[in-house]
Amino acid sequence: MRKFKIGLIGLGTVGTGVYKALQKFNDIEIEKIVVKNINKKRDIENFDTSLLTTNADDVIKNPDIDIVVEVIGGVSPAGEYIAQAIENGKHIVTANKELLAKKGEELFNLAEKHNKVILYEAAIAGGIPLIMPMKTIMAGNDITKIRAILNGTTNYILTKMDNDGISYEQALKEAQELGYAETNPTGDVEGYDAMYKITTLSTIAFKKRIKLENVYREGITKVRPEDMRKANELGYKIKLVALGNLNEDGRADVRVHPMLVKKGDSLAHIDYVTNTVCLEGFPMGKIAFTGAGAGEFPTASSVVGDIINIIEELKHTDDILPMMRCNHVEYADMIDIKDTYNRYYLSITASNKVGVIGMIGNVCAKRNISLSTILQKGLSQDNTADITIVTEVCKEADIQEAIKELTECKIDSLIRVE
Amino acid sequence: MRKFKIGLIGLGTVGTGVYKALQKFNDIEIEKIVVKNINKKRDIENFDTSLLTTNADDVIKNPDIDIVVEVIGGVSPAGEYIAQAIENGKHIVTANKELLAKKGEELFNLAEKHNKVILYEAAIAGGIPLIMPMKTIMAGNDITKIRAILNGTTNYILTKMDNDGISYEQALKEAQELGYAETNPTGDVEGYDAMYKITTLSTIAFKKRIKLENVYREGITKVRPEDMRKANELGYKIKLVALGNLNEDGRADVRVHPMLVKKGDSLAHIDYVTNTVCLEGFPMGKIAFTGAGAGEFPTASSVVGDIINIIEELKHTDDILPMMRCNHVEYADMIDIKDTYNRYYLSITASNKVGVIGMIGNVCAKRNISLSTILQKGLSQDNTADITIVTEVCKEADIQEAIKELTECKIDSLIRVE
Repeated sequence: MRKFKIGLIGLGTVGTGVYKALQKFNDIEIEKIVVKNINKKRDIENFDTSLLTTNADDVIKNPDIDIVVEVIGGVSPAGEYIAQAIENGKHIVTANKELLAKKGEELFNLAEKHNKVILYEAAIAGGIPLIMPMKTIMAGNDITKIRAILNGTTNYILTKMDNDGISYEQALKEAQELGYAETNPTGDVEGYDAMYKITTLSTIAFKKRIKLENVYREGITKVRPEDMRKANELGYKIKLVALGNLNEDGRADVRVHPMLVKKGDSLAHIDYVTNTVCLEGFPMGKIAFTGAGAGEFPTASSVVGDIINIIEELKHTDDILPMMRCNHVEYADMIDIKDTYNRYYLSITASNKVGVIGMIGNVCAKRNISLSTILQKGLSQDNTADITIVTEVCKEADIQEAIKELTECKIDSLIRVE
Repeated sequence: MRKFKIGLIGLGTVGTGVYKALQKFNDIEIEKIVVKNINKKRDIENFDTSLLTTNADDVIKNPDIDIVVEVIGGVSPAGEYIAQAIENGKHIVTANKELLAKKGEELFNLAEKHNKVILYEAAIAGGIPLIMPMKTIMAGNDITKIRAILNGTTNYILTKMDNDGISYEQALKEAQELGYAETNPTGDVEGYDAMYKITTLSTIAFKKRIKLENVYREGITKVRPEDMRKANELGYKIKLVALGNLNEDGRADVRVHPMLVKKGDSLAHIDYVTNTVCLEGFPMGKIAFTGAGAGEFPTASSVVGDIINIIEELKHTDDILPMMRCNHVEYADMIDIKDTYNRYYLSITASNKVGVIGMIGNVCAKRNISLSTILQKGLSQDNTADITIVTEVCKEADIQEAIKELTECKIDSLIRVE
């Protein structure tokens, strides 16, 4: 039996999961592991530290290694490592969503040039099988819509805020204590992580490259417990939703932002660190995939799945996995967020002058913004009114203009509504 | 560009969907279609009736055809057609769950002997990508649990009964009028369809063959509106659940029956004709797939997915899709339903003798059956009591024995509880 040899770059949470999950495969051997610190204590029984190296060349340029698995994350040096590994004849398995979103094109082109594959099932929605199904069994479909919860940290925070009525800051603190959020949470809470994922996911779904700089991004740091409460009263949950729409004119609308979703919606009951991806296409209709978006073992499941698919193919042919190759050539025309049409939830504090509701109504009407819900609660002690508005579908540019004109009101929140 | 030629056996709902969905592929051509009635009106624009034949040999033995797509269903003649097509060098795509469950082993063995593949994504959960993901990207997992809603007809009926408070018979009639149930609904409502599907699904998941005759099956025809109402009061929904469990001792427990599932459970909110499959395994954790389980286009999506995967491989090698082959050799040891442990919902009509609850309690206690809920509603006009019981986990054989002993009571319903 031929043994296939793996070089691992990174032995953090995901790397450790991959190491453990690969132990049961007799034809797979981990040859070398690149780490920063050889002496760090590892959570692996009977670990053979002679596998470790601090020199990436021991993996990248190792002639015995068939597949390089990159699980360090970040653009650099991960990108350089992967490029050199490809040039040295290795197939690549990576969990690096940021690198794919930022440098995907050049890396995939390089891989094609060298007849190598880059697989990345673990990069998007962790343990959920998504990339391989989309590129193989679903390949005959025209997918036109993606609605997803792709970041477990923010979904955990929003779920805690909703269930316990606590503030964003408190929920973040709890998430950090439980290891669901990092000490510097920016990448998650400001929506970067979800943005990287929806960028690559939309590229695969729409079969056209999506430029990261054209993807609109907004995080969850401004969502207040009051918004959670009001959303609930109106029959909604607030989720950080990653959206991809391919319009009939062929233009793509790709974005990440908080959103009010109806309680009966398939996104609404996805709680805590669970991820979900709902795809809509023809002829398949609507398909939803739900599971663990992160974590040592779910992520390892996807990395290992990629590895064994490469190996099973290598047993038969060198021209492996034709459907898993990247063959996008065109860039998608993109729709700017200002030109999109949405419904909006507005939470407004107004000084209780006579006619303030009328004024809001007039400013909106001038831009053809219809209001579907208006709630004004009794005056607060400081003689201001708490007004909640939900609009009908209108243009983003119009609502932004309207807000600028509402100078006598304080706009506490503006959140899009599905 | 090489053209790949398809022979279609069957041009009903699924076949028509496949025909339409294949039109956009320039390298795929439908060469011949076997039908019963050439003169039947087809729901296809500008249809070329010269494609039709009533002689299956025109497809099976046609040297120009690369792939035979079987969408007529049933064991015979579909099984003979597929066997002959394989012997004549064709790859097979089928949507035939009954055939796979009953004759899978011999057909897969035959296919291996001739180095051909049989793909069947459409056979289980229609448009939901499941078989290919399980056999490829999820292949490194040990899957130990399947919980699924696999039959749209029964799920539609149960949803209607639940939402509208109507009887099984009324809901069935509505389903038939809408085309969701057949004139003879037995295959769906008695659980056969779901049984075929869970049999094949468990075989793939557990990597051991499941014998159809060892799969327990119970349909939905005895579920009453009163059970729906009571289940709701207790915080449950009633669903026809297909279950597969691989126990730690390596024995499999595979079955289909109505079940009370908690309202928060991921199966509970799957309504009408939607299907869902929840898989649990290591290292992946829990993954749920949700989508259309039937219908012209969703099913066609899966058939077309199988076709284009075969074609993309044929462009590179004859030794195609190694991971999609069937390599099960062992049969699973199975657990008889009598030896399974479950919770039970019981609806009992008792003549209102003093001590009837005590008697029920004693009969259960004798067999170590603990009762977690007992509800007795006020006497009805005929002086009988309506008693609802939910047990703790106990052995199926014990509850069946207990029921036999409750001679003074009428057992209106016995439904397992998750």
